[in-house]
Amino acid sequence: MNKRYQVVGIGNAMVDILSHVSDAFLAENDIEKGIMQLVNTDQASALYRKLGPAKEISGGSAANTIAGLAALGARTAYVGKIKDDQLGAIFAHDIRAQDAVYDMELAPADHADETGRCTVMVTPDGERSMHTYLGVSEHLGPDDIDVAMMADTDWIYLEGYRFDGPLSHDAFAKAIAACRGAGGKVSLTLSDPFCVERHRDAFRNMIRDHVDLLFCNHHEMMSMYQMDDLDAAIGAAARECETVVCTVGDQGAYAVQNGRREHAEAVPTKIVDATGAGDLFASGFLYGLTGGFDLLNAAQMGCVAASEVISHIGARPEADLLEEFRTHGLLK
Amino acid sequence: MNKRYQVVGIGNAMVDILSHVSDAFLAENDIEKGIMQLVNTDQASALYRKLGPAKEISGGSAANTIAGLAALGARTAYVGKIKDDQLGAIFAHDIRAQDAVYDMELAPADHADETGRCTVMVTPDGERSMHTYLGVSEHLGPDDIDVAMMADTDWIYLEGYRFDGPLSHDAFAKAIAACRGAGGKVSLTLSDPFCVERHRDAFRNMIRDHVDLLFCNHHEMMSMYQMDDLDAAIGAAARECETVVCTVGDQGAYAVQNGRREHAEAVPTKIVDATGAGDLFASGFLYGLTGGFDLLNAAQMGCVAASEVISHIGARPEADLLEEFRTHGLLK
Repeated sequence: MNKRYQVVGIGNAMVDILSHVSDAFLAENDIEKGIMQLVNTDQASALYRKLGPAKEISGGSAANTIAGLAALGARTAYVGKIKDDQLGAIFAHDIRAQDAVYDMELAPADHADETGRCTVMVTPDGERSMHTYLGVSEHLGPDDIDVAMMADTDWIYLEGYRFDGPLSHDAFAKAIAACRGAGGKVSLTLSDPFCVERHRDAFRNMIRDHVDLLFCNHHEMMSMYQMDDLDAAIGAAARECETVVCTVGDQGAYAVQNGRREHAEAVPTKIVDATGAGDLFASGFLYGLTGGFDLLNAAQMGCVAASEVISHIGARPEADLLEEFRTHGLLK
Repeated sequence: MNKRYQVVGIGNAMVDILSHVSDAFLAENDIEKGIMQLVNTDQASALYRKLGPAKEISGGSAANTIAGLAALGARTAYVGKIKDDQLGAIFAHDIRAQDAVYDMELAPADHADETGRCTVMVTPDGERSMHTYLGVSEHLGPDDIDVAMMADTDWIYLEGYRFDGPLSHDAFAKAIAACRGAGGKVSLTLSDPFCVERHRDAFRNMIRDHVDLLFCNHHEMMSMYQMDDLDAAIGAAARECETVVCTVGDQGAYAVQNGRREHAEAVPTKIVDATGAGDLFASGFLYGLTGGFDLLNAAQMGCVAASEVISHIGARPEADLLEEFRTHGLLK
């Protein structure tokens, strides 16, 4: 019998504040290009005051992946923590509107923290640099994990960023135990090279002991295994984990499974905003994998989904991804 | 001596909730295409629940016009009413970030209403249909008008939508008296044909007695003067008002001043989202008029600014409008 869900994502529930900035703006404000930096409310407010006009769009790495999967018609759910405030209502609306089931832990309106937000600064090259105020999403803990939901899914998808919250390690452990105990599998995304720096040992232990499918990009992979050579790092990961997928920007993606290694070419696209590229790659790959497509096909679906999301502002898909898969000959 | 401001706008402070919908969605939900409809909180919530994923971007008709003028380098200010909540903070940030001075009346955090929002539903033809929850913006009254500011501007720009609030008639009267008393001039936009239906007599009296410059589109113009013939309606308006400007979609705009009549061609553009077309036309026209350009030039600037804003999602300009004016030979 099919499980109720194909993929359940757990991560930081974030509203993105998207703005175009110059490289000089990054330099003036000591913002390191291309990475995510955690900031407190004061730092977030100070930066926001300097920022030009912005757009607000629901984001959050795992939430983007789940939104992409839901848009593809997969049976999905999302677990994250928002507050009963206006940005929380926007986040909840957008994931529900995408037909993802939603088990959102709601912090009360009098909670000291607010719904999390991520200031995404897009430079003219399409690269994005992020300042994240976690807000209530930081407090996602084991009490927020519904074990029945975790037992009723083929896959859970864990967001590496959540390793920044001590409570969330316990939440992940609880989710993993419930999922694997019922025959489900575990996927993890490393999220960010600096996130890997902060939590290398915890990631390593989890990969070795519990992860069936690892998502990362080449920066994260080399940081994870502290190797300068990408092939060697992928090899090291593949010895610890059944399936390893590593994206390499415009070089596409490598996928390794049970000794088989595939390379999917990137789909050439004008990059408007790189936000969500890795998240939507994971959507496409998981769609292929859970749909019984072979490894190369799944990686190609990842590349197509990533190319759609970088062609516009915002980290959620806007075009019909199934149609895009058909256009690229990946679906009939 | 120059006045401190060239244009001060007064209107509904709104955050737009932008979403793509089908024509069938409009039909199913009894939404009349192309117009703005006022809704209460319950209606707004019910529609939002049915709506797909959305983007949030600061809007508000007069606020869009002022943001456009500020982006062009004009000395501007904006008066509207927001609440001390997250959407209010977003609205205030975006208008401040555009370098417009800002005299925002702030309703306290415990006010029963929230910051206003406008659900903008964009159909595949780029046309937009709007459901507006006014929230605290409805309470803009004479106490919110700073007479010193109104005396220190060349022009005030009044948003017709605000005729829907009884208190705001008094606010407008106070602003007009202060502005004209100090030698300033008054511009008004009719905003929407149904807004004209609701307040035809009040608009008519104001135009005759106090308005130096009238902005409208052809639907509003014909509704205002209850004539089927656009030329006749423009003629009727021009007998009551020094300068009359009427936009006609892809037919461009007519401008009449002291018996002189000009026609500016529309700039051909792929319409992605028509939201803000009239608002940014007013930005361009007021920039030309206050900058000493002739009537046709000012109308052409209006058409160029309108074409920029309909080429992307959102009602605030994203490209450099001065550069666009140069490209079209309107500035050196």
